[in-house]
Amino acid sequence: MSKKVEPRTLPGFMELLPSEQIQFNAMIDKIRSAYERFGFLPVDTPIIEMADVLLAKAGGETEKQIYRFNKGDNDLALRFDLTVPLAKYVCEYQNDITFPFKRYQIGKVYRGERPQKGRYREFYQCDIDIIGDGELSIINDAEMPSLIYMTIKELGFDNFTIRINNRKILNGLFAELELENESVDIMRIIDKLEKIGEENVVKCLEDLKIEKSKIEKIMTFLKIDGTTDKKLEALQNLNFSNELFMQGLDELTQVIKYVRLFGVPDDNFKVDLTIARGLDYYTGTVYETFLNDYREIGSVCSGGRYDNLAEFYTDKKLPGVGVSIGLTRLFYKLNELNIIKEDKKSIAKVLVVSMTDDVNRALEIGTRFRQAGINTDVYVENKKIKTKFKYADKLQIPYVAIIGEEEEKNGTVSLKNMETGEQKEVTVEEAISFF
Amino acid sequence: MSKKVEPRTLPGFMELLPSEQIQFNAMIDKIRSAYERFGFLPVDTPIIEMADVLLAKAGGETEKQIYRFNKGDNDLALRFDLTVPLAKYVCEYQNDITFPFKRYQIGKVYRGERPQKGRYREFYQCDIDIIGDGELSIINDAEMPSLIYMTIKELGFDNFTIRINNRKILNGLFAELELENESVDIMRIIDKLEKIGEENVVKCLEDLKIEKSKIEKIMTFLKIDGTTDKKLEALQNLNFSNELFMQGLDELTQVIKYVRLFGVPDDNFKVDLTIARGLDYYTGTVYETFLNDYREIGSVCSGGRYDNLAEFYTDKKLPGVGVSIGLTRLFYKLNELNIIKEDKKSIAKVLVVSMTDDVNRALEIGTRFRQAGINTDVYVENKKIKTKFKYADKLQIPYVAIIGEEEEKNGTVSLKNMETGEQKEVTVEEAISFF
Repeated sequence: MSKKVEPRTLPGFMELLPSEQIQFNAMIDKIRSAYERFGFLPVDTPIIEMADVLLAKAGGETEKQIYRFNKGDNDLALRFDLTVPLAKYVCEYQNDITFPFKRYQIGKVYRGERPQKGRYREFYQCDIDIIGDGELSIINDAEMPSLIYMTIKELGFDNFTIRINNRKILNGLFAELELENESVDIMRIIDKLEKIGEENVVKCLEDLKIEKSKIEKIMTFLKIDGTTDKKLEALQNLNFSNELFMQGLDELTQVIKYVRLFGVPDDNFKVDLTIARGLDYYTGTVYETFLNDYREIGSVCSGGRYDNLAEFYTDKKLPGVGVSIGLTRLFYKLNELNIIKEDKKSIAKVLVVSMTDDVNRALEIGTRFRQAGINTDVYVENKKIKTKFKYADKLQIPYVAIIGEEEEKNGTVSLKNMETGEQKEVTVEEAISFF
Repeated sequence: MSKKVEPRTLPGFMELLPSEQIQFNAMIDKIRSAYERFGFLPVDTPIIEMADVLLAKAGGETEKQIYRFNKGDNDLALRFDLTVPLAKYVCEYQNDITFPFKRYQIGKVYRGERPQKGRYREFYQCDIDIIGDGELSIINDAEMPSLIYMTIKELGFDNFTIRINNRKILNGLFAELELENESVDIMRIIDKLEKIGEENVVKCLEDLKIEKSKIEKIMTFLKIDGTTDKKLEALQNLNFSNELFMQGLDELTQVIKYVRLFGVPDDNFKVDLTIARGLDYYTGTVYETFLNDYREIGSVCSGGRYDNLAEFYTDKKLPGVGVSIGLTRLFYKLNELNIIKEDKKSIAKVLVVSMTDDVNRALEIGTRFRQAGINTDVYVENKKIKTKFKYADKLQIPYVAIIGEEEEKNGTVSLKNMETGEQKEVTVEEAISFF
């Protein structure tokens, strides 16, 4: 025998045991089903793209993290998100798709970050966006929270809050305070309010050499509190003259109105003026979603409105709004906290087992179960009875259909509930209708 | 504005319009559902692996086609099939998984072949395998045709044949004829019988400098004809003394017996002694599956039995049997022939449309439909009525729920069947139970 290669998986790449994979897939299924409930269309773009296409908009960190390589004469790269491929797709097929273009994509993306606990180099993003041709109604900004609401509910969580803000309000505030040039830096700091606390935000702002009086105004603004309506009222009462600010406030007010019309309960959303979503990509509404009992997970579903999806490819104006779930990291975190709400544990609902060496009847019964649409495993190895049951046990298959001499004679099976140990002899038809 | 990058997709990478993607995904769903019907467990390995792990067994063509690159100090490669990752997975987690290990994996693989019509560099493989720990019953070889049968039926085809052979019969024949050294070459030639015809096979065999009398015996063997049972009988009647041959014949006979017990109709399988499946990877049973009305597509589902899944990683003997569907190519071919059996054309079942500028009630109704589990799109842009209906039309959404002043007053919706043009005013509850 030749020297063996050690079989190993790269660090930073999630690889699950089947029992976990079943849960992971069930979560993907639920997200997909929720996305389709809203009528969004599936898209599946390649994982490899021309590097210049992928990096048209990128820079800095992204460029460093990207997997880039040559094949033949081609300078290629692996996608690092699903937004750039969406921009490419919309431009490439703009004459074949229908606007507003509502698409979802669930797929793996790649970032060569330093691997650390809960950080992955290959991870699933579940993206959903609405792209308008030239314009896009603000009502779409309200459909996203409705979508987030149904999706997170479907994943089994009730106590969560979708935090909504509008970047025009923040940008308007900065204009009012004549701090436009510092706005990106300030937003990055504000974004961390929850993480680093008020005092440190003030300190960071001081580091930017912002006047005390202006910092005070920023902090007063950030501390606007109370119910959603009270907050909107307080913003009105600031009596700012800045046009952008007023536009943002008007948009936010409309979004809140429509979010309610979409039936999202007030318990599950709120205005959060501190949310800026770091990147200067978003231009209007922004969202973050937190599980209130597990704030340490961070936002489980984020996104926002952008004015222009594809300015690096086209002069066509393509405004959009969308959100994304980083499922790989979320799964890791939920798993770590032991709060995965997914109770699907096995693929097979029943394992057909013969008590004798003759499996003929087991095969027939297995086929009948399968034809009836029941996920069925048949144990065909010639092993001890104990081994057969252990197999069902390990795979957490809830029922074993036992075929012994008695059952064969009677044309029946004995269904054993693997959890309770209960066992009952029934006809094959009864077994089928039971499952 | 800066210079624009041309948004484009790499040649050899399938990228579908949403209407096609819906069909493609429906096919994946059906394959997955069939695989799960047999109780197989899902596995999702990384697309990137250490190059030495992926290439442990490879050589020749595979090495040339592989996407390989460095990131940091790592020599990486993209998986070119799902079998090598399975071997890695089974060895890596051998203490955590349960044998016989029945797993399926549906995912993209990468081969930098010269792109040509119907050949892709990124394509989906739908693999399903059973791996034994040291041994694996021959009955598993019969479960595969049962699985292929249900899967292809599910994809909408009835007239197909699963062709079954056993490589030990062929290898035994070569041993009997003292042609062991030429066996790999001969099998490659035999594999092409259907493609190149009898005469060319003889020619190719002559090129190998094989004696005329032996070529005659090979051709006599290949021309064994008749029903499955007649063929098995004819093979018995050859009275070969070679042990391998007899073992193969015994295995094939058993496989056929169990395939019938699994309920696969004789119409949908047959013994085909010419099938060898090129690669010297398979050691026993081999399968190919043809749509009889579209033989030009080639085999739509192939595979076989292998003695040793992971000999490059471990001394542990891991025999297995499995099949694979190359879905990207299959989809391309079915599409080209216009015989995709998938009638799912839209995601949304209904588009909610307001006849006035006020969409408030449309949003409420949309949410009620969605809460009832109905895939629902709501048109929220402020456009002409005609544009709204055109949207439903283009997306092939079968129903539009119209809300005009009358419907708003009556608390109803008018359901319009977009195919027949029929329209009916119903209550929201009636609409929900209709869908």
